[in-house]
Order: sequence, then structure tokens, then C-alpha cells
Amino acid sequence: MSGQPLTGRESYKVWREIGTRWADNDAYGHVNNTIYYTWFDTAVNAWLIEQELLDVLAGDPIGLVVETGCRYAQPLSYPQPVDVGLVVESVGKSSVRYRLGIFSQNGDEASAEGYFVHVYVSRESRRPVPLPPRWRAAFEAIAG
Amino acid sequence: MSGQPLTGRESYKVWREIGTRWADNDAYGHVNNTIYYTWFDTAVNAWLIEQELLDVLAGDPIGLVVETGCRYAQPLSYPQPVDVGLVVESVGKSSVRYRLGIFSQNGDEASAEGYFVHVYVSRESRRPVPLPPRWRAAFEAIAG
Amino acid sequence: MSGQPLTGRESYKVWREIGTRWADNDAYGHVNNTIYYTWFDTAVNAWLIEQELLDVLAGDPIGLVVETGCRYAQPLSYPQPVDVGLVVESVGKSSVRYRLGIFSQNGDEASAEGYFVHVYVSRESRRPVPLPPRWRAAFEAIAG
Amino acid sequence: MSGQPLTGRESYKVWREIGTRWADNDAYGHVNNTIYYTWFDTAVNAWLIEQELLDVLAGDPIGLVVETGCRYAQPLSYPQPVDVGLVVESVGKSSVRYRLGIFSQNGDEASAEGYFVHVYVSRESRRPVPLPPRWRAAFEAIAG
Repeated sequence: MSGQPLTGRESYKVWREIGTRWADNDAYGHVNNTIYYTWFDTAVNAWLIEQELLDVLAGDPIGLVVETGCRYAQPLSYPQPVDVGLVVESVGKSSVRYRLGIFSQNGDEASAEGYFVHVYVSRESRRPVPLPPRWRAAFEAIAG
Repeated sequence: MSGQPLTGRESYKVWREIGTRWADNDAYGHVNNTIYYTWFDTAVNAWLIEQELLDVLAGDPIGLVVETGCRYAQPLSYPQPVDVGLVVESVGKSSVRYRLGIFSQNGDEASAEGYFVHVYVSRESRRPVPLPPRWRAAFEAIAG
Repeated sequence: MSGQPLTGRESYKVWREIGTRWADNDAYGHVNNTIYYTWFDTAVNAWLIEQELLDVLAGDPIGLVVETGCRYAQPLSYPQPVDVGLVVESVGKSSVRYRLGIFSQNGDEASAEGYFVHVYVSRESRRPVPLPPRWRAAFEAIAG
Repeated sequence: MSGQPLTGRESYKVWREIGTRWADNDAYGHVNNTIYYTWFDTAVNAWLIEQELLDVLAGDPIGLVVETGCRYAQPLSYPQPVDVGLVVESVGKSSVRYRLGIFSQNGDEASAEGYFVHVYVSRESRRPVPLPPRWRAAFEAIAG
């Protein structure tokens, strides 16, 4: 595990509350490590939809997830909801890397911190394409 | 499929909003049929926790799920949240049967309707025990 | 809960082994009640694909899940795999109803028993269509 | 995304076949990125149970997941099963880091590659404890 401390609430640009579900808790009574990634996925795509960038059925280009990761600091448990913070860490020619922080609602220290990388490809060829200007502008507007 | 129509919002006693997740959608672009059951589970247990009845780690008796079912009328999709309605249909000596309705937030007709039966057993023996009076009173307070 | 006993291994026509996953276990250390439905979904669709009936991307008609249900008799836990038995209970003009049994690998008594109803609709209109003869024949070949 | 190529089958020490489920596929018709982590979790814990190291209910110490990550190279889809390769990358005083490779069954190039870090803590204090010799020996036996 990297020794770097997790970043605080002040480093995130967009917030989303996500509820936990009974089945999220595993045999130790805490939210299973894999569930955090469903929150990342949910927060990133909801933001893209709200920005009117993502159109799952017909949009072009489409984003492929090429890398994700998470460091876990404090356990969480159903039924407490969580706050998910989102910030763009970097924008490449065809890609974007987000950082995501998971916070309990009464906490200023992250319970977990992760990253999520999308590469944008043509729906047809599945080859990387340059980010359209409207997408790039949206990413830069929430860059850290 | 039973030909009975699904019941409307007016027949439910307790409400909970639950968010959808990207991974809830399946290959057809709609929330997968199995996810509705995670909402039932989440709504029932959250209500039990709020009533200070359910204590997952130490409570006695504990509820075992013995039967569930769902009829699906209209598809739902991430990212729309859903309203889950809850009502107690019947209370037995050791058991309770809930009906649950899933509604889109702009809809008065149920997207799906299900039921969920808990039998209460001793934590130690795992044999059914009579419902404690406080549990029975809480169930009767939200009976339909 | 219906008082009917669960049916035994001899009543099923098609079998599939499905592995459990760590995250299937919930806070009580047993496979969560919602996971059984992912097994039903997996067993039915895998059989349809093996019969060369289901083509998720382009097939017409497509099956909509309109009703499911499950009765639970004995808990199961990761890491034990399960045997899923499948049989067609009835075939309608546009629909098929399956019964599914979940068995631990050293057990002849079902741990759970459920049902799963598909209605077949036109990909375009989403209105029910008569079952194509090849589909109907496949269903009848595994009818109980 | 790191530019490093994914490692091949020859670099893994322990193998496990895991089946896919219908609900694993997301709206793009491929296994969702979060599901790979359920496979990591499943493969690591199954190996620990087979080695008679992990006892979920009573064992001491217990492993906390402190960091995970995954790089995705090729999509996978239900119903194809996957082969999961496992190797220990490093063993610390209280921790172990695994590398995991996900392969389609007809492929020698990894579809995805991830890592998974457990820190072992006392069940009572939740503070890190030195790895017991039997655990350390098992990890070293499958080190890369």
C-alpha cells in the first residue's frame, strides 16, 4: 500500500450521495471491497449523463474503462449512505483519469480513495479517438 | 404470471428512495430482474433498523428470509432513482410478510411489485420463536 | 410461505454447476437471498444460448422477465458451489415458466426452489409474439 | 494507465476457474469492470480456505483489504467462464500482496491484471500483527 495519505473533501469538485444496500455488507459486516467500484462507476457515469455527454445507447465515442484502483482506510457499513467526491486528475489525447473519494456523511477524512481511467474509442472501430472539444472542456472544468 | 393488477402508491405505508447504479443495468440496458430483490432487502432491513428492532451483530431473534417473489410491469434504468413502498400484508406467530412496490419517481403505477417473508428464529437454536410484542406492534402499525 | 415441500433432484431435466463468490455471503455469513436469482438468470440464459435460441445482440423475439419467486429451505455459503436444476413447468402462447432448484453438491434435498417466467416480445414493438416453433420445441423437450 | 504489458499465464502459480453470470454483463454487453474484483476476492479467499488458513467465523488474525487495482485489456462476456491466475508478489511483516490475472479460456494473453493487498490484524484490537509462520510459509510457497 502506498504510504500517501488520502486527500480530504476540499480536493473534490463534484459530489454525489449514494445509498448502501443490505447486500453490500459481506461476511465481516462491512461493505465489501468490490462495492466501492460500483460507486465509482455510478458517480462517473451519472456526472457524464448530467453533462449531456454520455448517451449509452447511441453515443459516439464510447468510454472504455482501462484502469481502476482503490485504497481503503476505514470500513463502512449498510445502512449508512456515503458521499462520493469526484475530480479529474488528468486529461490525455483520448483519455481521462478521475480521482474519487468515499466519505461517511459525518466524516471529513476519506474512508477510501480511488481512481478510474476511461479511454474514448469509436463505437464502430473500437480504436481510440481524440476527445471531442465539448468533452475536453467538461473534464477541464472539474480538474483538480 | 398472475393476472392481478399491481397495487398503487396509496396501498403502501412506508417509503424509501433508493438510487440505481450503473452496474444494475444489464445487457438490455435495463435494471436486471435480480436487483429489485436487493431493493426489497434494503428497504425492509433499513426500516427494521430505524425502528430499533434489528441489531445485526447481537440481536435475538434473527429474521431468516424464507420466501420472496416479484412481478415486473415496466422496465427501469440507471440513472433514475426509485421509490420503494412497504406495507405489512400479514403477521403470523413467528413470521411477517411484506408487500413492496417499486415506482419510478414520476409514476403512480408500480413498475414492479413483490413480497418478502421473514421467519424469526432464536440466534442459538435457529428454531422459530414467537414474535416479541415490540416487533409485533411495529408490524401491525404498518399493516395494510 | 407455502407449505408445499420442495421437489427433489429427480424432477429437474437440465443441470448446471455454478460457483459461489465471496461477496455472495452477507452479514450473516450465508449467501444472500438475492443471489439465488442471479443463478436462475444465469442458468436459464445459458441453456437458451447453448440451444442456439438466445442471441442477446440481435435476436428476435426477446424474452422479458415478468415474474420470479423463490422459497428458501437451507442456507448456503461461499465457497461451496451449487447445482442448479432446470425444468419447464408450462408453455403458453408467448411465454414459458421454468422451475429451478438449488442444491448443495452433497445434498439431495433442495436448498431453495424458484420459478422464472419469460414473455417473448418483438424486439421492435415490445409486444408479445407467438413463440417460434423452434423455441416451443426446445421448451417442450425439457418440460416436467 | 501504466504502459507495462500484462504478464502471461506462465507467471501465475495457482489457478481457479470462475463462471460468469448473466448479471455480470452491463449495458455494453460486456462484464462490468467491478465484477473482476469479485473474482479477485473469490480466488484469494478460496485459496486461503483450501490452505486451511482462513476461518471466517473464528479465525485470528483476520485480513483487511487495504488496496486493490486492475488494468483491463480485452473485454469478456457472459456466458464464457474465466481462468483466474494467482501469485504472491510480496510478503511484508503483516501484509501480503497478490497479483491476479484474468484469462479467457482460449487465450494466453491476459484480459485483465490486478493486485490485491491484505493486512492482517488482530480480531480483537484491529491492529496489525506479524504474519503467523504458517501463513508466511504458504504465501512464500506461491511467490513469483
